[in-house]
Amino acid sequence: MAPFARAAREGVNGPRLRRRLEELSLHGRPSGGTFTDGVSRVAYSDADVAGRALVMSWMRDAGLNPRIDAAGNIFGNRAGTDPKLEPVLFGSHIDSVPSGGNFDGDLGVLSAIEVIERLNETRVQTRRPLEVAVWCNEEGVAFNNGLYGSRAAAGLLTDGELDHVWNGVVKRDAVRKVSGNPDRIETARRPAGSFHAYLELHIEQGGTLDREGIPVGVVEGIVAIDRYTADIRGFANHAGTTPMPDRQDAMLAAAYLTVAVNQIVRGEPGRQVGTVGHIEVSPNAPNVVPGAARLSIELRDLSSSKIAKLGAAIEERARAIATETRTAIELRREAHHESAAAAPRLQAAIEEVSARLNLKSRRLPSGAGHDAQSMAHLGPMAMIFVPSVGGISHSPREFTRWEDCARGAEVLFETVRVVAG
Amino acid sequence: MAPFARAAREGVNGPRLRRRLEELSLHGRPSGGTFTDGVSRVAYSDADVAGRALVMSWMRDAGLNPRIDAAGNIFGNRAGTDPKLEPVLFGSHIDSVPSGGNFDGDLGVLSAIEVIERLNETRVQTRRPLEVAVWCNEEGVAFNNGLYGSRAAAGLLTDGELDHVWNGVVKRDAVRKVSGNPDRIETARRPAGSFHAYLELHIEQGGTLDREGIPVGVVEGIVAIDRYTADIRGFANHAGTTPMPDRQDAMLAAAYLTVAVNQIVRGEPGRQVGTVGHIEVSPNAPNVVPGAARLSIELRDLSSSKIAKLGAAIEERARAIATETRTAIELRREAHHESAAAAPRLQAAIEEVSARLNLKSRRLPSGAGHDAQSMAHLGPMAMIFVPSVGGISHSPREFTRWEDCARGAEVLFETVRVVAG
Repeated sequence: MAPFARAAREGVNGPRLRRRLEELSLHGRPSGGTFTDGVSRVAYSDADVAGRALVMSWMRDAGLNPRIDAAGNIFGNRAGTDPKLEPVLFGSHIDSVPSGGNFDGDLGVLSAIEVIERLNETRVQTRRPLEVAVWCNEEGVAFNNGLYGSRAAAGLLTDGELDHVWNGVVKRDAVRKVSGNPDRIETARRPAGSFHAYLELHIEQGGTLDREGIPVGVVEGIVAIDRYTADIRGFANHAGTTPMPDRQDAMLAAAYLTVAVNQIVRGEPGRQVGTVGHIEVSPNAPNVVPGAARLSIELRDLSSSKIAKLGAAIEERARAIATETRTAIELRREAHHESAAAAPRLQAAIEEVSARLNLKSRRLPSGAGHDAQSMAHLGPMAMIFVPSVGGISHSPREFTRWEDCARGAEVLFETVRVVAG
Repeated sequence: MAPFARAAREGVNGPRLRRRLEELSLHGRPSGGTFTDGVSRVAYSDADVAGRALVMSWMRDAGLNPRIDAAGNIFGNRAGTDPKLEPVLFGSHIDSVPSGGNFDGDLGVLSAIEVIERLNETRVQTRRPLEVAVWCNEEGVAFNNGLYGSRAAAGLLTDGELDHVWNGVVKRDAVRKVSGNPDRIETARRPAGSFHAYLELHIEQGGTLDREGIPVGVVEGIVAIDRYTADIRGFANHAGTTPMPDRQDAMLAAAYLTVAVNQIVRGEPGRQVGTVGHIEVSPNAPNVVPGAARLSIELRDLSSSKIAKLGAAIEERARAIATETRTAIELRREAHHESAAAAPRLQAAIEEVSARLNLKSRRLPSGAGHDAQSMAHLGPMAMIFVPSVGGISHSPREFTRWEDCARGAEVLFETVRVVAG
């Protein structure tokens, strides 16, 4: 029980971390629900705006003096003894998927604030300055393109990205809603080398750590992601009077394409995944042959070239489906996130800290995308994973045991101390 | 040109009919659009309420003194010379599918009012009273169950139907919105034999009349319809961290089921049709394996037993898909509309009137459901079809030539005169 004794003496405050996770969960909670009913805090929603305000109030309490950059990211700094040194940057995000869980992102942000609180309480001054980051729109449910805030910081926004429209809202207006300034978006860009290291604590979201009973995951790298939109145009017509051979049914084409994505992705050996998670059908009425459909197709693997090859195979199959169903299918790659390797010296630091705390750790890849991917473009990064019970995430049933949350925050705390000197 | 000369002398006023079709089209028109951009006047919407008010103002202008029954149907009466006789009932509906056309339903309602106007103008008194009907929620987009108003009149509502919820609204509240009285719904029921005949003018919605250049269709019967809802439960999880074999993907199951419906329906000879027109996926985010999906499945044929057999085959296939995809699929038959035969003597009357007007006619079945189906439970019914250009309906591109609209109204006018004596 050494680590707990230690935690009680000078480590993080687990109960406060839990209390804040529970309090933040109120913003985006289904009405009448409880903590275990999950959260819908999609970026730029009213719940997101309220959650951000709450987090900023905690940052202020911790003396972090939060500021919002032009992209809508929130940062807070704590001085080091040597102001000439670059800071150690750490944080995560608080936006969620619809009906998501209360740990994905939130744990990393609230643990980062907890690290600062604990340093304040124990009057520890690090040599390097510390900087806490709350990245905007990590999930990318809004505007179908994730890691938005960290990509803005890394200079990875795509041309015209701020003009994208989602649910009738232009992205630049969404950015204004979170107090960003789309007209000066370039000021959100950070130079390479502007931080000494980037650290992020996150739930695994997969089942490896939970299955093996290991409390700490040391991320080796993050998978590459390709996200496509398939736009299918058929012809809307009466479902009673249009003979089957005369139809141009966009929903039927969407169904064939969904099955094809699954078959193509599963047709190769390896750990790659492919998902059709989003569909819109028009006019979406039981008595009308659907005239249009839009699908998302997402492919992930540590190898960028493998998912590029899968994308090409899906595109070829889409052409055949269009011909068979007499529809037009346009497949567009909307987003590409490169895979990113974690810095070996930071991985080693996390492992040493874990060993010192008597916590077992193991290395593993991240199947999920993270803001750390963007940060890898600017400097060394590493991630600490904690177990997700049953490997469940992006679900109200996402859960990480409270003691595992505290352990993860403790590993982050110690790693920050080691890396910041 | 005999019919036109005749129409000018004592028939219907084609330009007025067109003007009213155009004016009604404003309610539910996409913003900034024109007549050819179609209409979204789903039952119980604000557009529906406004359209009903406009139609009632025209009924009042025609001396019809409109009343609304407990179900939300609108009726207006014109006295006959023999008040002891049962009335001739005729009309249609003004609700539409989303992004529908401006002729489906509207033509029948406005032509019915036109018939009354013309009788008033020519001071013709029929022997039997006349009654114009504007049925509520024919399309059944709202609450996924059509012919609602006419079924209420025919005593065909299902148990608990008023408690159904759609888009967060309970049906009884929707009925109140159109000035119905859900607490006295049984008063909307009409006794069998309470009308002498029911007549309905409607666009064909299929391509037969247009292809053959025939202006008048005499409906022989209306197809039976089975409408199912498939509820698919999978498990929502992270799209990056959940290995393909571990998924319980509700969208994938929905795709397999959609393909299966198409294959099963097309696998038999005949004119039967099957449509998956509506889908909802949850949480419907690109980076989440879908945890739930709901589909509509609609089957139509003149033979009720044939669609029952197809439904059974789909149910069997759904069980296999559920096993393969590790999901649970529940298939519920939400609505069944019996096929209905038109009364031979009314079909003959329409044919005689058409011949007298020098208009070619042909008999044909109706692939679409109509309120006339419900009325067939109470007394003899018949329908007059006019051509749909290109067979397009339930689409903004739905169109019936103005001269064909006027011809249809003229046939209705003359048929009402013959049948009402």
